[in-house]
Formats: sequence, C-alpha cells, structure tokens
Amino acid sequence: MNCNIAVIKGDGIGPEVVTQAMKVLDAVGEKFGHTFNYEQLLMGGCSIDACGVPLTDEAVARAKASDAVLLGSIGGNTSTSPWYKLPPEKRPEAGLLKIRKELGLFANLRPANLYEQLKGACPLKEEIADRGFDMMIMRELTGGLYFGARETKEVDGVMTAVDTLTYNENEIRRIAIKGFDIAMKRRKKVTSVDKANVLDSSRLWRKIVEEVAKNYPEVTYEHMLVDNCAMQLVKDPAQFDVVLTENMFGDILSDEASMITGSIGMLASASLNETKFGMYEPSGGSAPDIAGQDKANPIATILSAAMMLRYTFDLDKEADAIENAVKQVLVDGFRTCDIVSEGTTLVGCNEMGDKIVERI
Amino acid sequence: MNCNIAVIKGDGIGPEVVTQAMKVLDAVGEKFGHTFNYEQLLMGGCSIDACGVPLTDEAVARAKASDAVLLGSIGGNTSTSPWYKLPPEKRPEAGLLKIRKELGLFANLRPANLYEQLKGACPLKEEIADRGFDMMIMRELTGGLYFGARETKEVDGVMTAVDTLTYNENEIRRIAIKGFDIAMKRRKKVTSVDKANVLDSSRLWRKIVEEVAKNYPEVTYEHMLVDNCAMQLVKDPAQFDVVLTENMFGDILSDEASMITGSIGMLASASLNETKFGMYEPSGGSAPDIAGQDKANPIATILSAAMMLRYTFDLDKEADAIENAVKQVLVDGFRTCDIVSEGTTLVGCNEMGDKIVERI
Ligand SMILES: CC(C)[C@H](C(=O)O)[C@@H](O)C(=O)O
Ligand SMILES: CC(C)[C@H](C(=O)O)[C@@H](O)C(=O)O
Repeated sequence: MNCNIAVIKGDGIGPEVVTQAMKVLDAVGEKFGHTFNYEQLLMGGCSIDACGVPLTDEAVARAKASDAVLLGSIGGNTSTSPWYKLPPEKRPEAGLLKIRKELGLFANLRPANLYEQLKGACPLKEEIADRGFDMMIMRELTGGLYFGARETKEVDGVMTAVDTLTYNENEIRRIAIKGFDIAMKRRKKVTSVDKANVLDSSRLWRKIVEEVAKNYPEVTYEHMLVDNCAMQLVKDPAQFDVVLTENMFGDILSDEASMITGSIGMLASASLNETKFGMYEPSGGSAPDIAGQDKANPIATILSAAMMLRYTFDLDKEADAIENAVKQVLVDGFRTCDIVSEGTTLVGCNEMGDKIVERI
Repeated sequence: MNCNIAVIKGDGIGPEVVTQAMKVLDAVGEKFGHTFNYEQLLMGGCSIDACGVPLTDEAVARAKASDAVLLGSIGGNTSTSPWYKLPPEKRPEAGLLKIRKELGLFANLRPANLYEQLKGACPLKEEIADRGFDMMIMRELTGGLYFGARETKEVDGVMTAVDTLTYNENEIRRIAIKGFDIAMKRRKKVTSVDKANVLDSSRLWRKIVEEVAKNYPEVTYEHMLVDNCAMQLVKDPAQFDVVLTENMFGDILSDEASMITGSIGMLASASLNETKFGMYEPSGGSAPDIAGQDKANPIATILSAAMMLRYTFDLDKEADAIENAVKQVLVDGFRTCDIVSEGTTLVGCNEMGDKIVERI
C-alpha cells in the first residue's frame, strides 16, 4: 500500500517525537510491504515564525490532499514566548482550531487506559488502580463554544463578552453514530455526558443520542451529567467504556481522564472526519521546557501512528504490530523519564524509538 | 443576637440533615446566648407536590426577608420520579436556579479539604493524600451559560439549539473581589481558571482579574486553563488555595474537587450576595436512595450552618465551636456509613447530630 502522510512536526518536543513515529512507520512499511510518503507542513509557532500565520491556506490544501495527518504538538511557553503577545486569532492554537474546522475533523477519539506496567504512576489509590480502566473519550471537535459566534463590546458603557454554544441535530447525530460504532468494537457501553438540567444544547444532545441508540440494541447506554462525570472519573474509572460528549466538556474530561492514567506520554489521539481521513497526535502538549533534549516520551506519537494505520488505512495487523511492540518495550523495562521508576531502565526519546523499531 | 433563618429542608435526605443542623444551632444559641428563629419554606420536589411549581414567588419573598437561608437538598431520582417528567423549567432544579438568581447569590464558596482522620477515604494515592489539601472553590453563580439566552428551533429544517455564555466586567469584578478577599483570609493565593485560548468571555475574565489583582499586592495569583486545572486537581491538589472561576467551569471543578476529598458528606457550601446575606447548603445531593433511613451524613449541613454564622452573622467564635465539635467527633471515632472504616464507630444521622451537640 502507498500511504501519503502530511507530517506536521510543530513546536516544542513535536519534531523529536514525530521523528520516532516516522522511524517506526518505516519499520512497519519494510516488514509488511507498504510505502509511507511524507510531506512536511508547518503549523503553530514555527509557521508564525516562517509565514506570519499559524497555518497557511496552502498548508491546509496540502493536508487535504494527503491521506492522513500526523501531528506532533504546537505552541510554546505562554508566559515567555513572543507568540503569546499576538492577538488570539494569530497564536499557535488558532492553527489547530483552523485545521480541525477546515478538515471537518468532528470526531476526536482520546483513549485513556492504564498500562499494567505503569500502575505505579497512577495518581489514584491502589484499590482503584488495581481494577484497571480502559476508556475512549469521544469528543465532538468542530462545534459548540469553540466555533460559535463570539463578541466583546460595550453595552451601556460596560464591557460585555458573549460566546455561543450551538449544536444542531446533524452535528450531534454524526458524532453519536461514531460513538456507538466504536462502542460496538469495544465493550459495548456508551456514557453520553451533558448538562441537560441546564442547557438547551444538552437537551437536544440527549434526544438525538437516544434516537441513535435505538439502532444499537446491543449497546448499553446511559446519560450522565458533566459534573457527576468529573467525579466518577476519579471515583470509579473502570465503569467507563466510550464516553461521548460535546467539545468543551470533552476538552475538560479527556484531560482529567488522561491525568488519572498517570502517563500522558502514553496517550494517543485521533481526529476523524466523515471519510477515512484523520489527524493523529499525542494527547500531551508541546512541553517546551524539555524540547530538543532527547527526553520526551515518543510513545504517544507512535501509538497515534498506530491509530492512523487502523482508522485511515485499515491496516489492523500493522497497527497491532506497533501496539504490541510498545507493550513489549514496557515489559522489557525501558522507560523515558516521565514514566521511569525503580528497577526500570531510563532511555531517551531516540533510544525509545529504536527499542520499539527492534520489536516490530 | 436574634437570627432569622429561612429553612428549606427540601427533598431526599434534606429534612433529616437540616434537622440535625438546627439542633446544633440551638445548642450554640443556648451556649452563647443567641436566638435562632426558623421559618420553613418549600423548594424543589416538595414544592412541586404542594404548590405545582418548584419555588413560589411567596417563598422567594420570605427568603429575601430573612437574614440567611439554610438549605438541605432538592430533587429526586431522575429516572423514576414524576418530577422529571415535567418540562425543565418546572423541575426541582429550576427552583434552585431561580432562588440563586432572585437573591443575587453570585458568589458560591465550596471548600474542599481533606480531614486527617478521613485520609483513608481519599481516592488519590497515599503519596498525594499525605501532603493534604485545603482549597476554596469560588464559583460565579448567577451568570454564564446558566442564565444566558437559550433557544431550540428549526433552522432550514434542522433542529438547532443555542445557549449563550455572557459575562460583563461588573459581574467578573465583583466575584474576583470576593475571591481575593477570601484569599487574604487564607493562604493568599488565587488560581483564576478560564479557557482564554478559546473564549471571549474568558479573555475578558482574565483582563478583569488582572485589574482586581493589582489591589491585592500580597496575594499571589496565576491563570490556569480549565482543562489543565481538571488535571492538576488530581495530580497535585495541595497547590491550590482559592480557585476562582465562572459558573459552568466551577460546577465541574468543584464537584471534581469534592470527590478527591473522598468525603462529600463533609463538605459545606455558601452562596453569597453583595451584602451579608447568604444561602448555605451541603455540597452533596439529595440521595433519594437513603432518604428517611437515618443513614445520611449531617456534617456537611452542620458545617454549612457554621459558615452561615461566620459569613452572615459574623459569629466567628460560634462557628469555631461547631467546626471544633465536628473535628472532635471525628477524633472520637464516630462515623456515618459514608465514611465508616475499620476501628471506627458507626452512627446514624440523628446520633451524629447528638454527638456534635454534646461537644459544643
Ligand atoms: C489548545 C486548545 C485550543 C485545545 C482545545 O481546547 O481543544 C487543546 O486543549 C486540546 O484539547 O486539544
Ligand atoms: C442542580 C444543578 C442545576 C446545580 C448546578 O449545576 O449548579 C448543581 O449541580 C450544583 O452544582 O449546585
């Protein structure tokens, strides 16, 4: 198979972790007989520096012309970087929001699971960590407060800011369908999260999710209020399989879920549109403090590449090969500094990539 | 002193926990020479049953005429109770939103602290729990998505729902001032939480908080994004003193913070307006499953009464007396079933009230 991948290394640790993921992809290509063609594009701070904007229209067009996007990370230190002196719509993050919208990436999949070998890093107590957990946060990514109209203006001499949270039934239906589809391939449970006791958009959300659920009689589903969900994630994460929610709630809950694993450096993510096209990126940030020091954990990016093989290219065997290599490397005791513990072997970003390549 | 208190026992465990708080207040009154006059009002499900609406205008008027409101809890089982067959604006929760707005209770104070004796209940690992934590979530309560315009209608044949998130500078300023004022009485640190990389309302929030901060040179303050805050609460709760945030973020984060204590039955809350007037209630819900069984933990409500003495009536000594009695009862090993553990003595709701009264 011939795979055309737009590669956006981005800022901070982005370049070094993406380099490792490309190395792993090439090893997979060699073993299974595929060719990965990479086209590098700029987004975020590096694009601001080179082109004056966080994402050019040309980069968008090229990303669109590719089969999938592999992204590292974008942004820098918000208090010291000159990028954050710019108006909001010119900052690195604006590039990320623009590419999500332009590519129609409405379905953001964020797995949060506890690796047996990394239980020690879990901030929850043993009793809870021992039960383990493995959930998929399915976050709507192109609607809600992120993309509604907003305005700041004086009203009777008083500065007033307005953001709008809008969803229509089609936007809700397509993400709900993705959520139930994914649940069918997992443990067949969906927890739809909203704030239906307050928001109109949540009440519409609940109604449409109920309609979609009718077509999935095998899937158990429940509604949960967002405040309760924030509690349940800490109290009993094992209860969750697929968590389906709107953009802002998903932002908050997926970060909370990633933290309770204790190893964000292990968490991949995928952002999909209605076709097989997707953008794949690690869940963590650009970590400017350790950038360029060969300290970053490349596993989240490598696992994002595995998700790309699975969701965009339907290469399940190949994705399994990467995921198994990652598991093996943990079993063999290799750790980057974010997950190192007594009795394990500390390796750098590049060496971790090598160890995984060896196990493909 | 003569204190006129509007008492809203409400639904579920509300009546039994409020009864214990009144018992404790009366003991304080006797010891320190104050008279507490109670006027009972209806709100929530019991008001729907008796008056057809979750809160009558008359009840609002009487609450306004009182010095403070002591609230139990409202609402029932959302899947079985007939209250939840009603349209949203007639459900129990609508009463709560109405009283907050009508009484102008814009500042919601939700303490989340770990009791030395209850560390075992904390869902976080020992290493984190041992460091302890004691924070005050200061949530804006009468603005934002909760009270903005909302509408669901067909747009080109597609059902579309819109909620609006509005804040003006005055609303932000008054809650920020409350937050910094409280910080001055605590460890002098404010973490203001927003989503300024996306929302206009958050950017205005940040600007006004910065202005207010200038008047509190002794207070250290920082801005934190809401997704990051959801992570930090789990990773390192000890870092927080006052957490200042808008209505919806505060709803989510305060519940997350209450869960990491592992003992919601211990957590009080206060909702204040611009004067000394306030409404005081436990952080937990109405727990219909254990209502009327003498199993509920009354301590959150008793500590809410202590907050009332402190914030509305300036009776600090008396508030201390209640808080110390609660601590002593824990030291003496008495526990309701939500916090019981090996080697402690299980007591019911009423007996817990008695034990605290004995220690006033
Ligand atoms: C950078 C920011 C705009 C973004 C978001 O809020 O979506 C990030 O937090 C994420 O979750 O990918
Ligand atoms: C019942 C509900 C409307 C309410 C809220 O969201 O404010 C509750 O969750 C709370 O936090 O007091």
